[in-house]
This record gives sequence, C-alpha cells and structure tokens, in this order.
Amino acid sequence: MASDIEIARAATKQPVTEIGARLGIPLEDLIPYGHDKAKIAAHYLSGLGAKPDGKLILVTAINPTPAGEGKTTTSVGLADAMNRIGANTLLCLREPSLGPCFGMKGGAAGGGHAQVVPMEDINLHFTGDFHAITSAHNLLAAMVDNHIHWGAASGLEASRVTWRRVLDMNDRNLRSVVTGLGGPANGATMESGFDITVASEIMAILCLATDAADLEQRLDRIIVGYRRDRTAVTCADIKATGALMALLKDAILPNLVQTLENNPCLIHGGPFANIAHGCNSVIATQTALKMADYVVTEAGFGADLGAEKFFDIKCRQAGLKPDAAVLVATVKALKMHGGLAKSELASVSYEALNDGLSNLGRHIENLQQYGLPVVVAINRFTSDTEGEIDAVEAYCAKVGVPVALCTHWAEGGRGAEALARIVTETLATKPAEFRTLYPDDMPLFDKIETVAKRIYRADHVEAPRAVRDQLARWEADGFGHLPVCIAKTQYSFSTDPARVGAPEGHTVRLREVRLSAGAGFIVAICGDIMTMPGLPRHPAAENIHLNDQGLIEGLF
Amino acid sequence: MASDIEIARAATKQPVTEIGARLGIPLEDLIPYGHDKAKIAAHYLSGLGAKPDGKLILVTAINPTPAGEGKTTTSVGLADAMNRIGANTLLCLREPSLGPCFGMKGGAAGGGHAQVVPMEDINLHFTGDFHAITSAHNLLAAMVDNHIHWGAASGLEASRVTWRRVLDMNDRNLRSVVTGLGGPANGATMESGFDITVASEIMAILCLATDAADLEQRLDRIIVGYRRDRTAVTCADIKATGALMALLKDAILPNLVQTLENNPCLIHGGPFANIAHGCNSVIATQTALKMADYVVTEAGFGADLGAEKFFDIKCRQAGLKPDAAVLVATVKALKMHGGLAKSELASVSYEALNDGLSNLGRHIENLQQYGLPVVVAINRFTSDTEGEIDAVEAYCAKVGVPVALCTHWAEGGRGAEALARIVTETLATKPAEFRTLYPDDMPLFDKIETVAKRIYRADHVEAPRAVRDQLARWEADGFGHLPVCIAKTQYSFSTDPARVGAPEGHTVRLREVRLSAGAGFIVAICGDIMTMPGLPRHPAAENIHLNDQGLIEGLF
Repeated sequence: MASDIEIARAATKQPVTEIGARLGIPLEDLIPYGHDKAKIAAHYLSGLGAKPDGKLILVTAINPTPAGEGKTTTSVGLADAMNRIGANTLLCLREPSLGPCFGMKGGAAGGGHAQVVPMEDINLHFTGDFHAITSAHNLLAAMVDNHIHWGAASGLEASRVTWRRVLDMNDRNLRSVVTGLGGPANGATMESGFDITVASEIMAILCLATDAADLEQRLDRIIVGYRRDRTAVTCADIKATGALMALLKDAILPNLVQTLENNPCLIHGGPFANIAHGCNSVIATQTALKMADYVVTEAGFGADLGAEKFFDIKCRQAGLKPDAAVLVATVKALKMHGGLAKSELASVSYEALNDGLSNLGRHIENLQQYGLPVVVAINRFTSDTEGEIDAVEAYCAKVGVPVALCTHWAEGGRGAEALARIVTETLATKPAEFRTLYPDDMPLFDKIETVAKRIYRADHVEAPRAVRDQLARWEADGFGHLPVCIAKTQYSFSTDPARVGAPEGHTVRLREVRLSAGAGFIVAICGDIMTMPGLPRHPAAENIHLNDQGLIEGLF
Repeated sequence: MASDIEIARAATKQPVTEIGARLGIPLEDLIPYGHDKAKIAAHYLSGLGAKPDGKLILVTAINPTPAGEGKTTTSVGLADAMNRIGANTLLCLREPSLGPCFGMKGGAAGGGHAQVVPMEDINLHFTGDFHAITSAHNLLAAMVDNHIHWGAASGLEASRVTWRRVLDMNDRNLRSVVTGLGGPANGATMESGFDITVASEIMAILCLATDAADLEQRLDRIIVGYRRDRTAVTCADIKATGALMALLKDAILPNLVQTLENNPCLIHGGPFANIAHGCNSVIATQTALKMADYVVTEAGFGADLGAEKFFDIKCRQAGLKPDAAVLVATVKALKMHGGLAKSELASVSYEALNDGLSNLGRHIENLQQYGLPVVVAINRFTSDTEGEIDAVEAYCAKVGVPVALCTHWAEGGRGAEALARIVTETLATKPAEFRTLYPDDMPLFDKIETVAKRIYRADHVEAPRAVRDQLARWEADGFGHLPVCIAKTQYSFSTDPARVGAPEGHTVRLREVRLSAGAGFIVAICGDIMTMPGLPRHPAAENIHLNDQGLIEGLF
C-alpha cells in the first residue's frame, strides 16, 4: 500500500497561480512561495469586504483515541467531494507544527487520498509563518529581559516576568531553565522556560486577529509580567509591538495550497487546542467565506474541546456564524470508547460498539446546543464489518441525525460524495440558529462551570481559593467579559483520560488560571498540560533522510 | 536626504523571473519567494558543471572603525558599475542576520544608491534560510539531550556536551543558561547556552559545503560532545544528519535578488567572521562563477580577518582561485587609524591621515602575499576634501597600487565606473597567482603562528599548555590538516582593539581553541569573543512599526 508521501508525490499539482485564478485572485495579489504555495496579498483581502459570505461547516470529532479518527482527512475528503458534486467549496485548515514531525507523529495534512500538497513543505517550514511567530515571541522575551537589564523603568520585577520563550521543537530540556547566568553582563538571573511555538500567545493572537489593526491592538495588550503592586506590564509598555508587527507582516496573510484533487485550500495558523483555541486563523476563514459558497474547516481534538472553543472563542470574537457541524467517528474508536483495548480492536464486539456510541451521542447533543444541524461521518477502515457500520447508522437514525459512510482515505473525494450530498442538503433545508454557550457578561467562574456542566457533563467544578480570587481580580480589572479556554485532557469528557465513553456526574478540578489578554481569553487549566513536548526514545528524526533525488524519506 | 529604505522603495524592481532569465535560468528552475526573490533549483545548479568559470573579485576593507567603510555598498556599486561598462558581472553577498536589526545597526544590504532589494525582506526573514539553520541546530540539540535522557547509549556524558543552541536574536539572557530543571521528566540538568544563529557551526557548514552530499558528510562530522574517555560523539552517532538535511534542503539553494539598478545578486549564507569564516556560501560563489564573466564578492570585517579566512578557509576548501582584491577605505576611517577620535573627524588632519595610511598599506602588502593584484577603492564621503583624497591617491601611487575614487553611495553604479574600469583592466593585464598562506600539512600551532606573524605582524604567539596539548591531540586524531580560523578583535591588527594603524611586534595570546569538525577548521580564540549579542538600552526595535500602507518604518 502506498504511503501518504508516495501518494502525495504522485499527485499532479496545478500551479498555485491557477488555483488562485479559480478563486478569482489576480496574479499580482498572489505572493508565490515556490510554484505550489502562495500567500494572498493584504491588498486583495481588504477588497473582499462587500461580498456575501458562504456557508461555514465545522468538521469535528468524537474524543480521540489511539485508533485515530481522521478529522483532517475527512475535512479534505468532504471539500473534494463537495467540489465534485458542483458545490463551490474552499477548505480551511490549520498549519502543522514542525517540531512534532521529528518525534512520533507523521504529518498533519490529511492522509491517504485525502491530503493537501505539497505535504512535506506544509509539515516543515511551509511559508515561514511559525518561524515568524517564534521570532516575534522571542524578540518580545529579549526586549523584556533587556528592559530589566537596563533598570526596568516600568517597574516590572524580574521575579514576576511571565513571558517565556518558544521554539518549534520537541525539547524537554527547555521546559524549565534558568537564564542570565555568568555575571551581570549576561542579564538578570531568572527562572524561565520554553514552550513549543503553537503554544505561544502570539500564535493564538495571530489566529484570532481580524486584520492588521486588530493584531496590533492584541499584541499591545499582551501581559509580559507584573510590578510589585501586581499591576500588569504589557507589550505596549515594553514598546515592542511595532517590531513584532514588522516580523509578522507576512505571517498574517493566509496561505493557499491545493488538495490532491486540485481543489483550493487555505492553511493558516495552528494554535494549541488546550491552552489556546485550536482553530485556523480568523483571517483565513473570513477570506474563504468571501471567496466560496461553502467553507469547510476543522477544530482541534474532540468536539468537547475543539468545537466548544471554535464556537465560544473564535466564532464569538470574530462574529462568525457556522451553519453546520460534521462529527467524525470511526468504528474502531467507538469500540475503544466502549472499553476495548487497542489490541482487541480486530474483534467484532457489538457490546463495546454500542457502549462507545454513547460518546458519539453526547457530542451530537452538545453540538445541537449551539443551534447547529449535525451530520455524522463514519470514516471507514477496511477492517470495519457491515454489521458494525449498520449499528452506527442505526444509532444515528435513532437519534435523528443524518449519517454518511466515507471512504475518502482510500478513494479521495469520490469516497465522500454521500457525505457531501447530505451536508449540502442539510444546509439547504435546516437553517442553523447559531448561539454561543454563554453570554459575555456571565462571571468568569460561571462560564467555566457552564462549559463543565453542559459540555463535559460534570456535576461540580472545584477551584482553590487562589483561583477564585484571581478570577475576581481579573473581573475587577476589566477582563470579566472574556470567554474561557479550558485546558483538559482530550481523551475524555471528564478530566481523567481513562474515562472513555460518556462519563457524567464527575468533578472538574481547576488547578490554575491564566490570562491571555492579547488573545482575549482566560485559560482554565485542569490537570497537567504539556506545553513543550519531548522526543521519544527513538525519535522519527533518526529515520528521516533525503533520497538520491533530494526528496525527504522517513518523515511520514 | 532620502533614507536607505526610502531609496530602496523608490526603486523600479524587475520581476525576479526576468533577472533570472538574464542569467539564463529557465523559469521552472527558479523557485519564487514573492515576485522579487527566488531560489535557484538544485536541478539547475547540477547542470552548470561544464561551463568555464568567470573571474572572482574579492571586496575587502581596512580595519573597521566607527566611521564606517562601506564594504557591502562598494561591492554593490562595483557590480552595478561593471555591468554599466559592459562587463557581465554577478554580485555574491552574505545574508544579513535578523537579530541585530532590532538592536543598534541598520540593514546589511548596502546603502544609499548602492543597495540590493527588497531590503526589508533581505534583512528580516528573507527566504527562511536562517530559520532553517536555527531549526536544524536546535533539533540536533534536542536529539543530543534526548539521547542523554534515554540513557546515552553512545557513552556521551551530560557534563561533556559541547553542542549549544541558537536563536537569530540579540538576547544576552540566553548566553549562559541551565536547562533540564524541574525533575527527571524534564531531562538531565545541564549547563548550556545560546549563540546567535550566524555563530552556528551549521551556518559555517552550509556556507562551506560544495553540494548536498558534502553538506551531509560535514553534518555527520559535527562533534556534539565527548565520552568519559574524551573520544568524540558526533551528529552521525546521534543519527540526526538525515533529519537536519530534510530541514536544510531548501536553505542550501542560493537566493537571487537584484540591485537598485536591476543587476542580479546572489545572497546566500552569513557565518560570523570571528568564530567562523565570514563569507557567503561556496555554492553561491561557484554558481555565480558559472553564470557570469565576473563575480564580485565580499568577506567580513577587515582584510586581516575576512580576506585571510576567505583565502585560507573558503578558497582552500572549495578550490576557488580569486583573481583580484579590491580594498575599500574611507578618508574618515584612515584618519581614525591615524589617531583621531570620532568627534574630531570633521577636521582636516594630514598628519592623522598619513599615519592612518599605514593601515591601508599593511593590508595591501598582506593581500599581495596571496598572489593577487590589489585595487584600492576610496569610498567618498561628501565631507572629504580634495586634499585628503589627493593624499590617499598619492600614497597608492607610491606603493604602486591602482586607486579609484568612488561615489556609488550617492550616485549608484555610475559613481563606481572608474573603479570598474580599473578592476577590469587589472584583471586583463595582471594575472593572479593565487596561493594560500600556509600548506595543509603544517602543524596547527604553526598555522596560527603563520597568520599571526605574516598577517597580524605579531612577534610572538603565546598559548597555555592546555591549548598546545589540545592542538596536539587533534593532530593525533587526524584533524591536523585543517586550516585555522582565528577569532580576534576586528578593529586592530593586534588583539587590542585600541591599537589602530599598523601595529607590529605585539604578542598574540591564544585563550582557547575549538574544533569545528563539520565546518572543517580549528577556531583559535584570542580575547573575549561574543557569540550572543545583547540589546542596547534603547533598542532600534522600540522605533520600528508598520505604517498605514503596511510598510516597515524605523528599521533602517
């Protein structure tokens, strides 16, 4: 069987200028990066305002399991299928992170016959957006520490600096470091650390900004640390915003590539889905809505994390109104939610499958709370039996949600045509009445509780006194209107990754809250959240090399 | 008076595809980055082998002073002028570093009417080469520390790891750090630090590699640390080379841009001129020699450091045979070498000027030792008097070296036509007999002594016992054939930056030696060498911003 990269290389790509022309982008407004990648010029973006918006379709999934769900793959397959059946559709994906490619995972640009290309470039340096974010983040860090070195005129205290550094790398040794050793010429000695670039607040900011002016205001608001009196010192106070804008001026422009079937795809931004909101950029989504009748996009992790943040953070802040949600499930993953171990997945177990369907059902109910029609996509594995597929379809019929069996991984867009027909029909017949889960003016703790009870189905939210006090202080400081971004395990509705299926009545324990003042949300952390991954004992990097033709082998 | 960036923006750029077409590069072999930058595809480079080489002209300078010499500006002016007088000339420059743009200095893409464009892009992210080098360097660091975390099967000791990390940033706090704090899950606690990306050995390697195969072998040889028995552990032992190649596969390709006068320029690579050799890439220079009749290139700092390393490291390793050297001087800088302070430069002082000419004379003699004809370029400032210019010209006549007065900063290529005529005439009439300063088989200490005595004009080289022992060990280990790369102050022939003019009879004290096994040289460090700059009290970054048209202001 051909590997993802073999399939990707066998594709007949069209010049990106032709892909752009199909979207109506003039040649001079496409900034090429090679012949198969381009950025869309700011000039063109600013001229799109008057056009009507297309329909916005969110692809999300059940809670992830080691069996894999294929959310990106389904997004690609759906977009290709919709274009096949004559629905003018533009796909909007997140940019993958470079660092993890050298650890365990393969690429993040789809798979099989449902991929975006050039997949090696997209997974590595691409158009340099993440490098620009890394540079901007670290310039701010250098300016903060330099400000302290030269006397900290703002009153910022070295021991209260909260701004860390980032690298797009899996490097556990950088999680916790001490800098400024070796004497006063090397700056103040400070405890600090590095996160992976996707965890940078600047990544979240870039993805939530509606335009350059909004980006600038958000950067201004970044809190880099505190004075002795606990008042915040911001990026604006450090006078760094303009320089950061100079570094980000191209990174803010959406990137155009194509699917294996030569359909256009915007890939732009990729914030973490735990301490950030996990969606592609607002600018790309807004641009796509002006350029196509249908826009297919995705959100990180399962619907309890990704879709919730897509709706309550991204759509809320950007004023987006999604029209439908596609919920991806696989038979294998459902069986794992029913209690099977990964090693047992080859066996047919209707009992496990039926138990696991509770996870699917819970997500359906949750998505419906947002006023959206839901379509279930079964991403078929060749090992799935007819009986198992029937059981999933019967369940969907019972709960009154349309379902489509998809084989895009093996067959490309043709394999998702049934899904495409159901989606377009749903959009035509079931108008959405999108609503966020909570209003802006709800107290911060109540917002957390609302998500925990209505999405996670917890009975209680517990928080230490210090956390409640902190939330109250932020409300007093004018941050009470912000939405909340809950960081918890993606494997369960609860905060315990082992509790698969549809647990309820559990308790959510808040460990810590953080203010992302530039991104515009309060991060509520439940449990241990890793913001800098490590490499495994035998990292994928050990097997990567260039072949005789200079092509990358071993990466995917 | 228009600023550099105002002049650059007023330029009428040609599409980079047209610039490439003039060089005979087919459209499909140009990889565009926007409409004004491109990389040249590997396929095209590999097809150039059979063509005869053009003439290679090195632009170097007297020892730098705060008055400025204009080496890059003169390189641009000369290339433009040569093209104006009908000599088919290709310019080869180094890529500027992003980090320092936010500190004190302006851009490094020429100045006035002798610039390469797009200068903002060239000075910031450009085509991502430095970001790729940063990623490759830090991936190796992560893999080394990960190797230790998982038991160090190679025998590498945590306390003997020598491979640091890099960022393209001025960040003094990162010079000396401790990583791996916070418990065993965060790796082994280790002393380490960050250098600026231009100081990365991978930068030097990329610039010295003759092709992808050579790059791979050099990466393999990088020493990342030592075992308890002091044997070296290499990048190959860590199994990182292939992954580094994947990250560097585009960075190895030369970048094509243009001068303000629409002449082609390859900008590629930019290693430090102290702990590395300070020249653009061998691949770019070799490519240029195949594509043009004349190639103008430059080396870092003054001729004692930059030209020496260009000849004894780059030309030696790559088998390049330069044909002439252009030595840039300014009246102001010569007066500083004669003892004037920067505040006194407005005054006419023939005494200072005559004393300072000793610096010019010494560099002329040194360059002639390499068997090259030398031409002096006086980079004229408007404040220079006729009398001062006459004095410099008279000096050159006395020592029998042709000299040209240049006004390219104010007038572009037209202002360097006299220089261009002298250079082409010199090339036509004075064949070079290029030779390196010392043979490969000279003992390492003797190589250092040879450079110190014949170029720096020192009487003695002193080295601690440990340094001499180390050199002997490397000779025993098979590294004795390598050239030496001496890191000392660029402001003086001696190791004391205050000793301007042409000091002699001084003592060079070796503090430390390092082996750059991948780059293929021994670094000999005299005095304090800064490999991670800091930001000043008021960094340039504070004044940088995007204007209403989205253009960068305040950077240059």
